[in-house]
Amino acid sequence: MIIAVDAAGGDYAPKEVVKGAAAAVEEYGVDVALVGRRAPLEMLTRRYEVEQGFTIVEATEVIGCNEPPVQAVRNKPDSSIVVGTKLVRDGLASAFISAGNTGAVVGAAFLNLARIEGVQRPALCGVFPIDASNTALLIDVGANVDCRPEFLVQFAQLGDFFAKSVLGIEAPRVGLLNGSDERIEANLLAKESYELLEKTDLNFIGSVGGQDILMGKADVIVTDGFTGNVVLKTIEGLGDIFQNLMSPEQAIKISTDLRGTALVHYSQLACMVERMDYKEYGGACLLGIDGNIIVAHGRSQAKAIKNAIRLAHRAAQTGVVKVIKEGMQ
Amino acid sequence: MIIAVDAAGGDYAPKEVVKGAAAAVEEYGVDVALVGRRAPLEMLTRRYEVEQGFTIVEATEVIGCNEPPVQAVRNKPDSSIVVGTKLVRDGLASAFISAGNTGAVVGAAFLNLARIEGVQRPALCGVFPIDASNTALLIDVGANVDCRPEFLVQFAQLGDFFAKSVLGIEAPRVGLLNGSDERIEANLLAKESYELLEKTDLNFIGSVGGQDILMGKADVIVTDGFTGNVVLKTIEGLGDIFQNLMSPEQAIKISTDLRGTALVHYSQLACMVERMDYKEYGGACLLGIDGNIIVAHGRSQAKAIKNAIRLAHRAAQTGVVKVIKEGMQ
Repeated sequence: MIIAVDAAGGDYAPKEVVKGAAAAVEEYGVDVALVGRRAPLEMLTRRYEVEQGFTIVEATEVIGCNEPPVQAVRNKPDSSIVVGTKLVRDGLASAFISAGNTGAVVGAAFLNLARIEGVQRPALCGVFPIDASNTALLIDVGANVDCRPEFLVQFAQLGDFFAKSVLGIEAPRVGLLNGSDERIEANLLAKESYELLEKTDLNFIGSVGGQDILMGKADVIVTDGFTGNVVLKTIEGLGDIFQNLMSPEQAIKISTDLRGTALVHYSQLACMVERMDYKEYGGACLLGIDGNIIVAHGRSQAKAIKNAIRLAHRAAQTGVVKVIKEGMQ
Repeated sequence: MIIAVDAAGGDYAPKEVVKGAAAAVEEYGVDVALVGRRAPLEMLTRRYEVEQGFTIVEATEVIGCNEPPVQAVRNKPDSSIVVGTKLVRDGLASAFISAGNTGAVVGAAFLNLARIEGVQRPALCGVFPIDASNTALLIDVGANVDCRPEFLVQFAQLGDFFAKSVLGIEAPRVGLLNGSDERIEANLLAKESYELLEKTDLNFIGSVGGQDILMGKADVIVTDGFTGNVVLKTIEGLGDIFQNLMSPEQAIKISTDLRGTALVHYSQLACMVERMDYKEYGGACLLGIDGNIIVAHGRSQAKAIKNAIRLAHRAAQTGVVKVIKEGMQ
C-alpha cells in the first residue's frame, strides 16, 4: 500500500515530513510516495537512510499557506497538493496527506476526486484522541462554514461510518454540539438539526457542550464547519499554551525525581499535555469524496506526520470510502 | 455599595455562596445582600461569623438550572433570580450576581431592567484572565444565539466600553473570532461583520482564531452567542480536565520537593491550570442593559463567587453602565 505525502506542505517541510514518513515506513510497513521537489527530497531520504519503501513524485510548485485556495489550486497544477490528490484519483496512491494550506487541499480534492453519490457536502472530520482506547470525532472542522440542517445530518452519517469502519466502534454515540446545560437556547441551525437527527437511525444521544468534547461523552460530535474550526483551534491553542509551559521532556525529568501519588498525577498530566498536542494528532479526514485525503496541522512535525500516515493507512485498509459509498446509497 | 448575590443559584449554593460573599466583604469592603430563603442563610452567616456587612433579602422560590428560562421567570416571581434583578432595578443594589440558570438570569434582566437606548441586543461578555495584568473579553457568550452582522458590531462596541471602563485599557484591540490562518473561509456572518467592523472607529485588528483567545492577541473578541458559548464551555471543559489531573494543592506539594528550572516551569503550569479554572473566573457580564448583572459559572465555589463580587464591584465603581449609555447615544 502506497501513501502519498505532501513533502512541501506545512511549517516544517520537507525535513520533518521526511523524518515522519521514514518512521512510518519502518513502524507500519507502508510504502510512502513523497510529493515535492526531487533534489532536496533525495538528499533527505539519503540522510535518514530510508531509501527503502520510498518513491519520490516530483511536484515543482508549492502552494503557500496564506494563498487564496481556489486560485492557487487553479494556477499551480504542478503543486504538491494538486499532484498528490491526482495520485489518489488515478489509483496510484491509497491516500494523500498534507500539512499544507487546508483550503487548497480541500479545493484540490473537490476538483480532482468525485463526490460520493448521495453526499451533498463532503466534510472534514477532526480526530481527537481521548485516551489509549478512545477517540472523539468532530465533524465538520472547516470544509463547510455555512450549513443547512440536512448537511449536519450527513456529517453525522459520515462520522458514523468513519467511527464504525476506521475506529471499530459498534454503535457510535452521535452528539450535536450545542449550548451546554440546556440553559442556553440552541441557535436555529442546531434546533432544526436536532429534530432531524432524532429521526435518523443513528445512535443520537442529544446535545453535547464544548466541555464534553474531550470527555468522551460522544464518539461523533456534529457541528457546522465554522464552529468546528473555531473549537479545533481553541483546543490546539490551549495545547500550545500547556506545551510552552511544560515540555514532555521536563515532565519525564520531574517524574523520575518523584515517588507516589504525585508522580501518578503528574504523569497523567504529562500524557494529557502530550495528547492535546497537535504533534500527536491523527489529523482530519475529508469524508464524502472518492479517496482518502488527510489534512494534518500546519505545524506538524515528524510525529504528527507519522500518526497521520497511520490514520491514512487505517482508513485505506478498512475501506472507509467503500463503506460510505455503500451506506449512502 | 451593596452587591446582591443569588444565594440559591448554582451547584454549591447556598454554602459556597455565603463563604465567597463573606470573603468578599472582608477583602473588598463591600456590603452584600444575600438573596434566598432566610432561615438557612441566617444559620450560615452565623456559622461563618459574618453578620457584619450582610443583609438577607428573602426570596422563597428557586429556579432550577434545567428549567425552561422564560417560563420559570414568569412563573416564579419570588425566585432569587427575579428578586435579585429587581433589587438592581429599584436602585437597592449596585449589581446582582447569580451562578444559577443563565437563561433565567438573562431573561429576568431583560424583563426587569431597561435596555440602554441604542443597544439592539444586550450581550454576555465573558471575562478570561490571561495573566496578572491582562484579561481577554469574549462577547457574546450566549445571550444571542442567532445574530446579524450589526449585532456583532454592537457587541464590539459594548466590549470596547467595558474594556476601557472596567479594565482600564486605553485603546482595546478588537478582534473578530474567525477561521484561523485565513486558510478556512469565514462564514457569511463573519464576512459581513468583518466589513462593518472595518468601518468603525474601534481599534479593529482583524480576525483572530480560537487559538488566539487565551494568548492575549486581542482584548475584545467578538462572536455570535452560539459560537461564543461553545468556545467558553470548551475552555471550561479543558480546565476541568486539567484540574482533575492536578489540583493546585498537589502542584504546591510537588513544587516544594523540587529545585531549579523544573520548579519554575511547574509553578507556571500550576498557575495556568488555576487560571483556567472557573473558580478563578470573574464570570460574564450582561452588557447593554441599565444595571450590572453578572453570571457566574454554575459550578462556582467560594472563590468564584468572591471574584464575581470583585468584578461586580469594579463594574459598579467605574460606572460602566453610564459609560455605555453615553457612548451609545
